[in-house]
Parts: sequence; C-alpha cells; structure tokens
Amino acid sequence: MSKTRMEAFSDGVIAILITIMVLELSGPHEPTLEALRPLIPTFLSYVLSFVYLGIYWNNHHHLIQAVQHVNGRVLWANLHLLFWLSLVPFVTNWMGDNHFAAWPVALYGVVLVFAGIAYFILSRALIALHGSQSTIATALGSDFKAKISVALYLVAIPLAFVYTWIACGVYFFVAIMWLIPDRRIEKTLTK
Amino acid sequence: MSKTRMEAFSDGVIAILITIMVLELSGPHEPTLEALRPLIPTFLSYVLSFVYLGIYWNNHHHLIQAVQHVNGRVLWANLHLLFWLSLVPFVTNWMGDNHFAAWPVALYGVVLVFAGIAYFILSRALIALHGSQSTIATALGSDFKAKISVALYLVAIPLAFVYTWIACGVYFFVAIMWLIPDRRIEKTLTK
Amino acid sequence: MSKTRMEAFSDGVIAILITIMVLELSGPHEPTLEALRPLIPTFLSYVLSFVYLGIYWNNHHHLIQAVQHVNGRVLWANLHLLFWLSLVPFVTNWMGDNHFAAWPVALYGVVLVFAGIAYFILSRALIALHGSQSTIATALGSDFKAKISVALYLVAIPLAFVYTWIACGVYFFVAIMWLIPDRRIEKTLTK
Amino acid sequence: MSKTRMEAFSDGVIAILITIMVLELSGPHEPTLEALRPLIPTFLSYVLSFVYLGIYWNNHHHLIQAVQHVNGRVLWANLHLLFWLSLVPFVTNWMGDNHFAAWPVALYGVVLVFAGIAYFILSRALIALHGSQSTIATALGSDFKAKISVALYLVAIPLAFVYTWIACGVYFFVAIMWLIPDRRIEKTLTK
Repeated sequence: MSKTRMEAFSDGVIAILITIMVLELSGPHEPTLEALRPLIPTFLSYVLSFVYLGIYWNNHHHLIQAVQHVNGRVLWANLHLLFWLSLVPFVTNWMGDNHFAAWPVALYGVVLVFAGIAYFILSRALIALHGSQSTIATALGSDFKAKISVALYLVAIPLAFVYTWIACGVYFFVAIMWLIPDRRIEKTLTK
Repeated sequence: MSKTRMEAFSDGVIAILITIMVLELSGPHEPTLEALRPLIPTFLSYVLSFVYLGIYWNNHHHLIQAVQHVNGRVLWANLHLLFWLSLVPFVTNWMGDNHFAAWPVALYGVVLVFAGIAYFILSRALIALHGSQSTIATALGSDFKAKISVALYLVAIPLAFVYTWIACGVYFFVAIMWLIPDRRIEKTLTK
Repeated sequence: MSKTRMEAFSDGVIAILITIMVLELSGPHEPTLEALRPLIPTFLSYVLSFVYLGIYWNNHHHLIQAVQHVNGRVLWANLHLLFWLSLVPFVTNWMGDNHFAAWPVALYGVVLVFAGIAYFILSRALIALHGSQSTIATALGSDFKAKISVALYLVAIPLAFVYTWIACGVYFFVAIMWLIPDRRIEKTLTK
Repeated sequence: MSKTRMEAFSDGVIAILITIMVLELSGPHEPTLEALRPLIPTFLSYVLSFVYLGIYWNNHHHLIQAVQHVNGRVLWANLHLLFWLSLVPFVTNWMGDNHFAAWPVALYGVVLVFAGIAYFILSRALIALHGSQSTIATALGSDFKAKISVALYLVAIPLAFVYTWIACGVYFFVAIMWLIPDRRIEKTLTK
C-alpha cells in the first residue's frame, strides 16, 4: 500500500490544525495598542502550539520519508496521532484564555504526553512493518529524544499546580530541543 | 481520467471535516476541572465522529486504491458521499450539545445511513466502470459489512426514541467493527 | 511550468469552501424536530452552494486535465476564479439566514455571474497558451453551456426583485444542467 | 529530501488562510443593501489580503519550482514564513473591523515586513543549499523587488499614524507591483 495518501491526509489535517488556532485570535473592536494587550497570553499560547505542530509535521515528514510502504495498522496509528494533535487547538485556546492557569497548563501537558505516545506507537508500527534491519529502525534507534520529551511532560504536569510558569518553561524547552531537525534520519538516508 | 485529483479533493474535504468539529470544543472561561465537565458529551460525540470519519477515509483509501481510473459518474458519486459526510459535524455538535437526546441521536443515525448508501453507490459506480471481473469487484464481493452497518443504523434510529443509550451503543459497536481495516482489498491486491 | 501545484491549491481552496459553509449550520440548543425547522432555508442554501462548488470543482478538473502546462497569467486567472468562489459561503449564508429574500438572492446571482466570467477568462487563458488547435480549444469549442449559464444568471438577478422564487428556480435549474459532466472534454481526450 | 510534501503542506496552509478570512464576512441579519454597507471596509481588507496571500502562493510556487531538493533548515524557514502569513487573517480582520484606523494599518505593515523577511530568509536558505551558481541563485539575483517591498512597508508603518490612507495606498501599490509574476525564474528556467 502506497504512503502518498497518508502523507496528503496528514498534511491536510496538520495544516488545518496549525491555522484554525489563529481564529481564536479575533481582533479587538478598538483600534488601540492597549486593546491588543489582553491577547498576549493567547498569542504566546498560539506561538507555542504553532511550533509544536510544526515539529510534529517536520518529524512526521522525516519519519514517513524513511519508509517504503504502509498497512492498515499504520493508517490507524497515524489517525490516532492526528486525534491527539486535533486536541491541541482546544488546549491552546483554554490555556491562552485563562492566562496559563494551572489546570489548562497541566491539560496541555497531558495532550502532549498522549501525542508523544501516539507518535511512538506510529514509529513502532512502521518498524514492525519494515523489520529491525530497515532504514527506519536504524535511523530511530532507541529514540531517546522522544522518550525524554514524554518524561519531561510528565514532570511538567504535576509541576503546573506548584510552579505553573516552570511547567510552561519545560514545554518551551522541549520545543526548542526539537527545533533541531531529526538528523538521524537524514544521516541514515544519505549513508 | 486519472484518480489523483479525486483522491486529493476527498482527502482535503475529510481532513477539514475531521478537524473543524474540534472548533465546537471551545475552552471554558474558568481554568477549573469542573468547567470542563459540561464538555464531556461534546467530547464523546467528537470522538465518535472522529472515528467514523477516520473509518470513511480509511475505507475510501482502500476502495480507490483498488481502481485504475474514474469517470464523471464516479466524481459525482464521490461528491454525493462527501455531501453526507459534510453533515457529520452538524449532527455531532447537535448530539453533543443536547447530551445525546433522542432526536439528535436519531438524526445522527439518518446521516450515517445516507453516508452508508452513498458509499455503496460509489463502490457500485466503480465496479460498473471496471467490470465484474475486476480487482475492485472481487475485493468487495457482496459487501456484507457495509450492508449490515446500514441495517444496524436503521435499527438504531427508532431505538433512539425508546432506549437512546442503546442506539448510541450501536453506533459505537459499528465503529469498532470497522476499526479492523478492510482486509479483503489488501488480500486481493497482494494475491 | 507544471500544473500539479495549481491543481493542489485549487483543490484545497474548493475543499475548504465547500466544507466551511456547514459551520453556519450550527445545531439548535433544543433537541426537538421543531428546533430544526428554522434551519431549513440555511440547509437548502447550503445544498445549492454545495452543488455549485461541486460543479466548479468538477469542471475545473476536466479543464485542467485537458491542458499540459500553465503560466503566470493562468495562475492569476485561476486565483481570480477562486476569489469569486470564496464569496459563495458569504452569499449562501446571507441568503439562507434571510429566507431567500430579494437582495441576497440577487447578490447570489451576481457572485455566480462573476465566477462564470472568471471561469471563462481562465479557459481563454489556457487556450491562448495551448493554441487554437489544441485539445482544450477543440474540447471547449464555443463553450455554449458556460455562456447560457451566465445569461440565465443575468436574467435571474433583476427577477429576484419581482418573483424571488423564480430566480432561485433558475439557479437550481442551471445547477442541474451542469450536473451532467462536461462530456466534450472526455470525448475529445479519448478520441 | 524531496520537496513535494513541503509544497503540499504550504499549499494547504495558504489555501486555508486565504479562505478562513471570508468567515469574518458574516452576512448581516437584514436582507437590505444598507445592511451590507458596514461590511465594505471588511470586504476591502479581505480583497487586499486575498491578493497578498495569492502573491505569496504564486511567488512560493515559482521559488520552489526552481529548486531540486530541501533540507531541515529549509523546512523551518518555510514554517517561519507560514507563521507570519498565518497572522494575516488576524490583522486583516482587525483592520477591516476598525475601518482602517492607524494602529491596525501599522500592524498590518509589521506583519508584511516580517513575512517579507521570512520569504527572504527562505530564499537564502534555498540558495545556500543549491550553491551560488544554481538556477535559483541566478533567477533571484539581488532580489530587488523583495527588498523594495520591505522598504516600502517600513515607510508605510510610521505613515499610518499621520496619513493612514496613504499607508493603505502603499500596501495596494506593492500588491499591484507583485501581481506581475516573477518572470526572472520563468526566464532562467526556459533558457
């Protein structure tokens, strides 16, 4: 089964998710700079989620590029990942609207944990299909970066109720850590 | 006539439908867990519809993969299917917003019935184009699963007015039944 | 210049337009059949516009299929068509919300006229690029159907202020006339 | 790394941005011509942004067409451009809603400046990847048009607080200047 439609569908879903979040940023009715100030938390929340969805798209691109074909199980693993990503606009909005309060920040982390797990399941389904000697298996290796990210989110969730801003800082830190693209796959492919 | 643009357009429409439903899940203005509770029916309704649209995309993928070309009639049969799927966000929202009340649950079933019929018409239009000895005709066979699904929806619609939750249970049951991808086409293709 | 990205972009825009209209169909807050009744004009208006956008996508598909390449002028002629199509959700919503009143019905016709002209300009730009002996020039011929459609919309616009429902009838009639796919191109291509 | 998915994702995002702006144009509840009058600034603002996003799509198309492959750095430069473009619906809406008042007009210019810079960064990342003797490097040259555009936006931003309409005029002027497609790339490619 070819992977092109799965790519096209995932591109479509992520493109929509990354753009509909901006609908929450509705312009205030006064044309003043002060009227924009209450939008700052929503805007920061938007930037964070834009970067996260960008990271997922980027990693998804690298991941699928390293594989040759897909099967029914992979399609569902992919839809499962898209489901958790589809909740990002909701938690982004809730977090921004409530000025990064404890519960929304914690729930943001919960969605990131499940998205991370879903990405892990997808990569394992692809490895299962291509074999442990395949490009994808070699490229991903033990997938340390994905594991440490989920671990950091799991630390940030309880932390949100004590030092909320440190929890937010953890999300920003993980995002920056991922901004460096997944060289492992690029390297393995060009070998 | 090549099938690529029909695939791309269908992917686009289904990707949008599966994601705009999440716009209904607007975050509450209080940052508390209790504020999320009223969203539970909307969320459950969203999950059900996400799975249904995922199933349709998955089956559509399998279906179109098994064919070589399309014609004007197939394009319209496809648009007809997309029309019924486009009503899914509306009924999802109505059902979730009214906590799975009788009428919305019944209407949800009506939309599923018409989507099921539209899918059947599309598959027949494809078989008519490729001949009764084609891969697609062999792979689909009598299409028992599609027929039983429509039959189950037809049972669930009147049931919604008596035991609403059983009707909902039927929708969840059919969804789970379809989560197992359509192996028939995969098997026929790899023969 | 290859035509694939123009196809992909047009597919994306039309897919979004055809689906965002459904956002206007927000479920009522009561779970009764009577609560749905006020939505009937909005629903009918949605069905009409779904069919029109389906027709444009279908004809666009046939048109671009008959050409080999595009240039900057064609890209802008295409964006010009997409601009007028992008106004369809607005007039659809205004027409449905006001129960097919005179002014909205007339404006719906105006948008259809401009979309029709934009489609004509696009087809001429494609013929200019491929020559008067090309497949596309032969297939389109004098393009009688497109001309008669614009003429009928022009009749319907003033009629909207006298017999509004006849004007609506004209829109439905033209839509049905176009439901028959553009066999000219299919025939010319298979010759 | 192939460029097709980056094209598909960018097409998706720009297609969504260009169409969701129309959601702001919600039909008034009275079916009269006077009821449409308050929408005129929003409509003009929509037209301007439609043209700008059309220009970006068009130039992006020309740019990517001239390159053979992409890398992780290009993917992020592209996402960075999409981020600034994603703010266009927000500033469009704010500007239209406030009848082209000083602050919104100035902020519109700020977003255009950053989008212009992001486009410049993307083109440099592509030149860095393909070498200074490549098609893309020759085609873009000193990229005078992109530089003069950013310079004009920078003039328009302070001007918005003195002669707001002249600032708007500058945006329209730059848009018209770009409506002429980027012949440099077309010429270099056909050499």
